[in-house]
Amino acid sequence: MKLASYKSGRDGQLMIVDRALQRCCPAGDLAPTMQVALDDWSNTAPRLQEHYERLCRGDHSETTDFDASKCDAPLPRSYHWADGSAYVTHVELVRKARGAEMPASFWEDPLVYMGASDAFIGPEDPVAAESEDWGIDFEGEVVVVTDDVPAGTTIEEAAEHIKLLGIVNDVSLRNLIPAELAKQFGFYQSKPWTAFAPVFVTPDELGNTWDGARLHLPLRATLNGKLIGAPNAGQDMTFDFPTLIAHCAKSRSLISGAVIGSGTVSNVGSKDGSCCLAEVRCLETIRDGRPSTPFMSFGDRIRIEMLDHEGTSVFGAIDQRITPFEPSRG
Amino acid sequence: MKLASYKSGRDGQLMIVDRALQRCCPAGDLAPTMQVALDDWSNTAPRLQEHYERLCRGDHSETTDFDASKCDAPLPRSYHWADGSAYVTHVELVRKARGAEMPASFWEDPLVYMGASDAFIGPEDPVAAESEDWGIDFEGEVVVVTDDVPAGTTIEEAAEHIKLLGIVNDVSLRNLIPAELAKQFGFYQSKPWTAFAPVFVTPDELGNTWDGARLHLPLRATLNGKLIGAPNAGQDMTFDFPTLIAHCAKSRSLISGAVIGSGTVSNVGSKDGSCCLAEVRCLETIRDGRPSTPFMSFGDRIRIEMLDHEGTSVFGAIDQRITPFEPSRG
Repeated sequence: MKLASYKSGRDGQLMIVDRALQRCCPAGDLAPTMQVALDDWSNTAPRLQEHYERLCRGDHSETTDFDASKCDAPLPRSYHWADGSAYVTHVELVRKARGAEMPASFWEDPLVYMGASDAFIGPEDPVAAESEDWGIDFEGEVVVVTDDVPAGTTIEEAAEHIKLLGIVNDVSLRNLIPAELAKQFGFYQSKPWTAFAPVFVTPDELGNTWDGARLHLPLRATLNGKLIGAPNAGQDMTFDFPTLIAHCAKSRSLISGAVIGSGTVSNVGSKDGSCCLAEVRCLETIRDGRPSTPFMSFGDRIRIEMLDHEGTSVFGAIDQRITPFEPSRG
Repeated sequence: MKLASYKSGRDGQLMIVDRALQRCCPAGDLAPTMQVALDDWSNTAPRLQEHYERLCRGDHSETTDFDASKCDAPLPRSYHWADGSAYVTHVELVRKARGAEMPASFWEDPLVYMGASDAFIGPEDPVAAESEDWGIDFEGEVVVVTDDVPAGTTIEEAAEHIKLLGIVNDVSLRNLIPAELAKQFGFYQSKPWTAFAPVFVTPDELGNTWDGARLHLPLRATLNGKLIGAPNAGQDMTFDFPTLIAHCAKSRSLISGAVIGSGTVSNVGSKDGSCCLAEVRCLETIRDGRPSTPFMSFGDRIRIEMLDHEGTSVFGAIDQRITPFEPSRG
């Protein structure tokens, strides 16, 4: 099934959306919000699924046209957002561009950082930044949402905890990153917002494009109408989702609604382009000695989407503009 | 006023607790949970305060004895947990013990990492770890809870967003830290749990020990009945809470219920002892060439508390045992 959250208060209103993303109905008493559904997923999911099937058959009374512009993030705020850097080829490329060796351990031990789970935004929400000098970039990623994951869960067990999938734009402020990483405490100011495509989908919707660990479809990133890249999310993902989840649950449990991200989708050689401008700039630096593609400017429009083999949008589109915010001046 | 959450489901049951931590009553329809209260704090707080005053006067009908053993964290799960390292003297000491220089910028630019806001535990909950080899340590800290903080909030404005204070044990797995920091993505597996003292208190409860930016009382950490330290949280805090909040809200807003931590409380010279074993071990290393105090073992009992000038517990006590967990073996 496919689930969205229409904007409503802090947690949104949970909506059941048909496969084609054309019609929807409120989940209503079944679960007013996505987190309520996730808190008791094993009971809630079958009942939502029943309504979903009726909706897809055209056999549901309370339906309306689905309107992505009304969407918040499918889970508007979460208690845990752990983002990996699972396409190690991307990490290697970034290092190569600045002339640094990547530690060999990066191929063995997943890189994961803790993101701001209160900073999720909807698919058409503006990306607000104080200054273009911050180096505003998009990052196209795949995410999974888990139920409760006990501490010490194995990779084999972890696969069973994947309940929903989605795609995101993990906004990065590239020019704030070097100073933050030098402090060794990870990203903080440099990772302001994460925007989500309109719907989360259950694994069964994905057919053979989902193998239980990786999603084998291209993720398309388009900036101001120009395709920047469409790397295949199923290729070159060094650490698959069960491996990332087991890593995240090594020293403690995760609670239902934890969002685990792949990091920027990237393929070896970037033959189908890139899902972030940083990678484009790294390729330019390696080729030309310096980057020529700028980061994003106010007014720029970033669209991120995943189409299935029939060309149908799986999650709906992230389609955002970059806008300035005025910091408070007290 | 003082507020706790009795264990009940995932979000607890919000309880109003009297000043002496002797009697309590459920907040009930005023706000079933702490997050519900925080989501509409400007409306909820005055009504909770009215019940609190009646409770403290002995003029409330539905009261029972307050039982800290029933407590979850006052906010059992949060959407944002940003922990500072605001006592830079501690950071300097840790560096000195390993013969490394601390960058001068650490005195100017706050260190903050993103913690696991879904991993909050109650004051008497066990600290579960798979192995003693992980180097299990406590960290005594002060935290504040904010309401909604707009992006770009100034330090002056930030003070107004502090709605509640508490104390925590930010459990650290010291032997997992070096490898994680070397990866530059910050702490993840090495920061498993954060335990909270029974109650959050509003700033007005703290009298002149709270100056709007720092809390001027010793934080007492006792391991197996032996006082490890009682440094004063108001001294040597290089970055006060408004500064930490402004740092956290530089590139985006924070939502109500964000928890901002001080990092391990530490005084120059550690004359009144330490609030973590890592600091004790650093002092030993500087003095003797190597540490002699071990990290915690299974069965150890850690108590963290803050007493006011009359010797009364302000937040109640964190009082936990270290216990092993068996990782799943699938």
